[in-house]
Amino acid sequence: MIIQVIPSVGEVRSEDLYHKTVIVIDVLRATSTMLTALANGCRQIIPVETVNQAKASHSEGTLLGGERFCKKIPGFDLGNSPLEYTTDVVSSKTLIFTTTNGTRAIQKAGKASHILIGALLNAKACASMAASFHEEIVIICSGTQDVFALEDGLCAGAIIDELTRRDQTDASPSAALTLNDFGLSMLYAYRNVQDRLEDALLASSNGKRLGKIGFKNDLIYCAQMNLFDFSPLVRGGKIETAYIHP
Amino acid sequence: MIIQVIPSVGEVRSEDLYHKTVIVIDVLRATSTMLTALANGCRQIIPVETVNQAKASHSEGTLLGGERFCKKIPGFDLGNSPLEYTTDVVSSKTLIFTTTNGTRAIQKAGKASHILIGALLNAKACASMAASFHEEIVIICSGTQDVFALEDGLCAGAIIDELTRRDQTDASPSAALTLNDFGLSMLYAYRNVQDRLEDALLASSNGKRLGKIGFKNDLIYCAQMNLFDFSPLVRGGKIETAYIHP
Repeated sequence: MIIQVIPSVGEVRSEDLYHKTVIVIDVLRATSTMLTALANGCRQIIPVETVNQAKASHSEGTLLGGERFCKKIPGFDLGNSPLEYTTDVVSSKTLIFTTTNGTRAIQKAGKASHILIGALLNAKACASMAASFHEEIVIICSGTQDVFALEDGLCAGAIIDELTRRDQTDASPSAALTLNDFGLSMLYAYRNVQDRLEDALLASSNGKRLGKIGFKNDLIYCAQMNLFDFSPLVRGGKIETAYIHP
Repeated sequence: MIIQVIPSVGEVRSEDLYHKTVIVIDVLRATSTMLTALANGCRQIIPVETVNQAKASHSEGTLLGGERFCKKIPGFDLGNSPLEYTTDVVSSKTLIFTTTNGTRAIQKAGKASHILIGALLNAKACASMAASFHEEIVIICSGTQDVFALEDGLCAGAIIDELTRRDQTDASPSAALTLNDFGLSMLYAYRNVQDRLEDALLASSNGKRLGKIGFKNDLIYCAQMNLFDFSPLVRGGKIETAYIHP
């Protein structure tokens, strides 16, 4: 199994993603929020890059969600806090969603054969589904404004840790795991802090920023491992819930 | 104390380094080799970017050293293996040195107020000297062809680990340590593998490459922590031994 981890969305070369399985991670908070919306009955999510695209896609029965500079966009129904995306708000709805980094990463992954949505909340399920496609795996840490974000790297490490476990139990001789140096360092970093992820996220740049503007509870929520047992897939420009193959 | 770690030389913006203390790391093998040469009596090292510059600087009493594609350059006295730089070869000599990544990183650091040479071999001494300048510290992981290299990141983590220890024993209230997210992840990664650095380096991309072309002993040598208690400084285009201030 070949795994490559990319530190931030600015470093993604779309043309390198053909025939690969991509996992997009934006732990604080885009992919954690998407997972929560889908877990709470949201029918599908349409990720778009700009506020204007979001507004143009808006119609009855859809919700507009997302952020710019960590804040809700004027005229939108919802911001980027996963705690807003409760069942009574999102059930059976289509969500049009735009964020600064996470939705941009999804767009840049467009040429991949499979695109999965990952966060700490579904690290294990995401690893299982990614492995099931038997392709080279590319993990995109969205980062913040093209700069690496610790929480995304730790989540990449958590997913790789799961893939490593699977690899060890796999009897196939071709199952040897090849990991780029950045991925190796994220695996090691995750293993060092896996028992204190909340503290590690609080010490990160985004963690400090969210704490200052009153979103510490979002961080505590997003630092939970494996709250969900599904990994959404991006297909035809839409994100839908997909459960692990048995 | 503010510390920033940069993943590879291609990401360095020279104009951001004014009034800062820069540590240049190229564990496999440029900075490990420079340290070894100086420890074995080499008088000074002149780092240059190109083979032609090296040849133009050559005169009696100087040695030409370095590599391209991990191999000794035709016409040069020495390659980039630290084990070649023994006392009988380098004592009292001036070394003109060029490598693909490490010497390029030194050139890009030119605007910094202090430039230190770091490797696992002198991590503790390097941290001590860097702290003694009381400036913002920028650690440049040279990487390989603008791609992050694990061994440089782990060395950055080792130096930060030392700086963290110093910070905890420092009574000054201004001593709080601020670290960018990439630096945090390197600290965590180092702490996870600090008791098996040799194995971690063997699993890295450069480690595998060096093993294949017969330089495994170089790697085993470069994986040693704190063999030397000095940290060379780059001054006026020359690298010279500088011992820790008492």
